[in-house]
Amino acid sequence: MILYGYPLSSASYRVRIALALKNLPYESITKDLRAGEHREADYLDINSQGFVPSLKLDEGTVLGQSAAIIEYLDETYPDPPLLPAEPRARARVRSLSQAITSDIHPLNNLRVQKALRDQFSATPDQIQAWIARWITDGFAALEQMIGAHGGKFAFGDQPSQADCVLVPQVYAAERFAVDLAPFNQIRRVADAAMALEPVAAAHPSRQPDADAP
Amino acid sequence: MILYGYPLSSASYRVRIALALKNLPYESITKDLRAGEHREADYLDINSQGFVPSLKLDEGTVLGQSAAIIEYLDETYPDPPLLPAEPRARARVRSLSQAITSDIHPLNNLRVQKALRDQFSATPDQIQAWIARWITDGFAALEQMIGAHGGKFAFGDQPSQADCVLVPQVYAAERFAVDLAPFNQIRRVADAAMALEPVAAAHPSRQPDADAP
Repeated sequence: MILYGYPLSSASYRVRIALALKNLPYESITKDLRAGEHREADYLDINSQGFVPSLKLDEGTVLGQSAAIIEYLDETYPDPPLLPAEPRARARVRSLSQAITSDIHPLNNLRVQKALRDQFSATPDQIQAWIARWITDGFAALEQMIGAHGGKFAFGDQPSQADCVLVPQVYAAERFAVDLAPFNQIRRVADAAMALEPVAAAHPSRQPDADAP
Repeated sequence: MILYGYPLSSASYRVRIALALKNLPYESITKDLRAGEHREADYLDINSQGFVPSLKLDEGTVLGQSAAIIEYLDETYPDPPLLPAEPRARARVRSLSQAITSDIHPLNNLRVQKALRDQFSATPDQIQAWIARWITDGFAALEQMIGAHGGKFAFGDQPSQADCVLVPQVYAAERFAVDLAPFNQIRRVADAAMALEPVAAAHPSRQPDADAP
């Protein structure tokens, strides 16, 4: 498989964690978002949204959208599972994931930061406040969800899809200097996940192009 | 089951469509977002994010996040299915859904409109432009995805999770006067879905509290 991604992209980082937890080998191709490589014609042929990540399967099919890719990996390579077996538990894990993939991350990514600068002449401080606001709001709800159903990890005692999504969001929060002190449960389970070697190996700093401009 | 929702909420509308396609009876409780009923303490006890929809199961469990709820319904009431059987096809349907649930809708909902007014003094025209921009960008990619893999519906010839998500986004686009002329495939498959009686019955105008302020 080939993963088209970018070290700092949260959505790419999620898929790297899932691949690593399942011990699946893959080739990594970096699309430098800051250089606009994701908007070039050859990549738009692969991913019509011009987003990373994309996962190219060995037979040639290309899948997009990090959460869809993680579900695909879980259906195709079920050991170890990233979702529990019971439907209500599966829904809780997906809810945790979507509280990040729908309610936090989409508001903070590079294209939104650019739109705020272009349309509202947002200053760096205003962008920082915008990002911190959505992370803080979202983490307040996640903190309760993890408090109710978390164990060693975000849900129960096995790493799940929710941890694949939470770890990159915590990393992004730290990059943007968001105060994580109020979020004991989030810090606790994210630390537990990051202590796993496969999760640690997916960290942006450990990717081949981590020093790309 | 009890669905806590709001007629005009896209995320509630998605779940109404899924419930209707599966012919599942449910009680509907309206939380009037414009009156702030979703931020009241009794509802925050049900949904810590203060978001609609929530689905309360007969045994008392409450599930949040529209996409997680739709997956739960599909796992628990599999006939008719809202996902195809083959893993790559499932990934494509989920990608279509997430191109809306992660990349369009989160940027346009009421709390974001409010944040743009509060933080950037956004005018109604600027908010209209902001909303139209994300719908237009997202629909351009969806148009290609549906062109590649759509059939009578957004994916293939059976209504899927992707149609549950697309129909409310098309409805929102029309409310915000976004020009849908360039999006032939989207209009075609959304019209096909809306022609199904269960989908039509889920329309905001046909909900009990459709005239709520």
